[in-house]
Amino acid sequence: MTASIPLNQPPATAEVEGFVSGRSNQRVTLGVDQPMRLDCGVELSGFTVAYGTYGTLNADKSNAVMVCHALTGDHFVSDYHPVSGKPGWWSMLVGPGRPIDTDRYFVICSNVIGGCMGSIGPAESNPATGRPYGLDFPVITIADMVRAQKLLIDHLGIEKLFCVVGGSMGGMQVLQWAVSYPESVFAALPIATAARHSAQNIAFHEVGRQAIMADPDWCNGDYLNQEKRPHRGLAVARMAAHITYLSEAALHRKFGRNLQNRQTVTYGFDADFQVESYLRHQGITFVDRFDANSYLYITRAMDYFDLAAEHGGVLANAFRHEGGPTPVRFCLTSFSSDWLFPTTESRAVVHALNAVAANVSFVEVATDKGHDAFLLEEPHFHQVVRGFMDGCAEHRGLTNRRAALV
Amino acid sequence: MTASIPLNQPPATAEVEGFVSGRSNQRVTLGVDQPMRLDCGVELSGFTVAYGTYGTLNADKSNAVMVCHALTGDHFVSDYHPVSGKPGWWSMLVGPGRPIDTDRYFVICSNVIGGCMGSIGPAESNPATGRPYGLDFPVITIADMVRAQKLLIDHLGIEKLFCVVGGSMGGMQVLQWAVSYPESVFAALPIATAARHSAQNIAFHEVGRQAIMADPDWCNGDYLNQEKRPHRGLAVARMAAHITYLSEAALHRKFGRNLQNRQTVTYGFDADFQVESYLRHQGITFVDRFDANSYLYITRAMDYFDLAAEHGGVLANAFRHEGGPTPVRFCLTSFSSDWLFPTTESRAVVHALNAVAANVSFVEVATDKGHDAFLLEEPHFHQVVRGFMDGCAEHRGLTNRRAALV
Repeated sequence: MTASIPLNQPPATAEVEGFVSGRSNQRVTLGVDQPMRLDCGVELSGFTVAYGTYGTLNADKSNAVMVCHALTGDHFVSDYHPVSGKPGWWSMLVGPGRPIDTDRYFVICSNVIGGCMGSIGPAESNPATGRPYGLDFPVITIADMVRAQKLLIDHLGIEKLFCVVGGSMGGMQVLQWAVSYPESVFAALPIATAARHSAQNIAFHEVGRQAIMADPDWCNGDYLNQEKRPHRGLAVARMAAHITYLSEAALHRKFGRNLQNRQTVTYGFDADFQVESYLRHQGITFVDRFDANSYLYITRAMDYFDLAAEHGGVLANAFRHEGGPTPVRFCLTSFSSDWLFPTTESRAVVHALNAVAANVSFVEVATDKGHDAFLLEEPHFHQVVRGFMDGCAEHRGLTNRRAALV
Repeated sequence: MTASIPLNQPPATAEVEGFVSGRSNQRVTLGVDQPMRLDCGVELSGFTVAYGTYGTLNADKSNAVMVCHALTGDHFVSDYHPVSGKPGWWSMLVGPGRPIDTDRYFVICSNVIGGCMGSIGPAESNPATGRPYGLDFPVITIADMVRAQKLLIDHLGIEKLFCVVGGSMGGMQVLQWAVSYPESVFAALPIATAARHSAQNIAFHEVGRQAIMADPDWCNGDYLNQEKRPHRGLAVARMAAHITYLSEAALHRKFGRNLQNRQTVTYGFDADFQVESYLRHQGITFVDRFDANSYLYITRAMDYFDLAAEHGGVLANAFRHEGGPTPVRFCLTSFSSDWLFPTTESRAVVHALNAVAANVSFVEVATDKGHDAFLLEEPHFHQVVRGFMDGCAEHRGLTNRRAALV
């Protein structure tokens, strides 16, 4: 999957001061001195993580922002994507003068482990065999993804992130960062997310996995070695998931019952309706940029996510630190029409943070755009991000507009 | 699909008076004298419809209730199902002394055309070739299903149905009955339904169809002639659909994040969670009782359903009759946690009926059971059905407990 992605610099071993915006596709080998132990017990050593950086790390390395991507996202946050040629998935939010201001912050985003855009994952070569891992790749968790990110910031010499921010599965990683490394995170912005994957969430993921596994070209996960691709199954998985990213109202507004380039229905199984054509397009284009096994692994990581379960079933306990509340400042954001990660899930996190008297604010943004709102033009949401970042920057003593470098 | 279903009497040509409860699997050949013209323009002649009857038709044939089944339902409403061995899908509602009281009413339910339980459909033999139709079967609509039902009651000598009742796609048929044949329906009970399929509804159906068509064993619809079955694709379609039948709350209550016969997760792709195991079971058992092409045809019929579109885009116009309101009495029921056919859709029908000053009542039943509530133990809902039926029976002059026969 990664062969077509040009590296815009060799694996990063240089000092990170002075990075300019646009180093969006770097590689680093982590776990060299000491292997990283995964939740499943397997140890990864000498594994690759792909990442991008935007902006400049200041002298005291206090302006680093970790952006965590969602299920099918990657580290091309703000630059043009090398495969699709489109702007990065969060270019509306991350860039010079934008809410996550790369004139002020040093933004880091790494492709999650288990992914397929350069970080170690099931499509990468297994050193033991010289062939793609396939299902021999160990099952990873959200905590494992964050462990790798922690090694990355260690590598970059950053002791404490100014902020960790992300939506959906990115938001899970934000929560996990705050819980696993509370002293390494100043502020946390979990967006459209939850502290656990619900039964309905798991159910939708299971449908996607079964769609992939039902495709004979999946070859029990060994398709890369057999020079096949389970494109049909992966497309169906994407179509099913895509519906969950949109609200019923958004689908109605965008498509309603409008027909596709025709005046009347065809009495057949072509894409009569625009919404059918749109969904098929989502499925077809997805398979060009995503690995089916990565889809299995990453959905599984989300299913396993349950912060409370790791803390005696009490979510608030996840946010206790040295006899008091977590030192991390939180701002939770949900979207009113998001039925995949509904506001109730964000509220549960807020209640848990309140229960330990942590520093937390919460905004439910009114929108009909559904779960995908965190990726879309949503001015109120962007104001929330900017406001929280600005306030925390002031508190952290970060001056504005690169002044820290002067 | 139908070979294993025993007929419990020869195709019904006898007089219908005196039918006893339990004649749940009859056959009739319709369209013999005159072919039935489908919306797509194709004419069907001499086609089979499978149906069941329960209770006794009274002397003036005024106590007939047409029950319309949902997507994957059939005519085994109240008897034991010959394939699954389980009680009929609405045995809670239909039977002696039950809300749709077979001591009082003569209940008829026919397998929809396009189905796979005995009525003509894509799995049946094409007279032109002597082989299963497959995709040569014409695409049918909800109105076509109701046309066939109208021919059935003509055959049974019934001029006017006392009531037409059904949920989900059954409710679409109820609405279509009232619009197509307002003088042949005394009362209508559309449950958990809508006057049109929404963009989200179409999207979910399209995912199911694509899952079936992605299965190589679908063979472009010709699997029966090639002795294959697209079981994997059909199972995925069923799994995706099944999620939409339940509310998030119901899934949480039933399964939550409970693990399946284990203490900890397996770090693999087996069904770790009970909800995964449940969904897989839904998929696997479905393929034993349903034909994949029928699934395509029936979902398509639902997608095409749009009562307003046939009436200049104004739903109220569908309910005008001879310069006034429809003579049909309506009772609409929705379920508060049904997100597939939400209350707003029922309200839209109620508003349209109000706009023409029709006789309509409406109940939103508070439940967390989601769309499937119409098939489940839901006492308030059952009271609504009983109350409306009793009130209409009084108005219609139907005496109680078989008194009409005395």
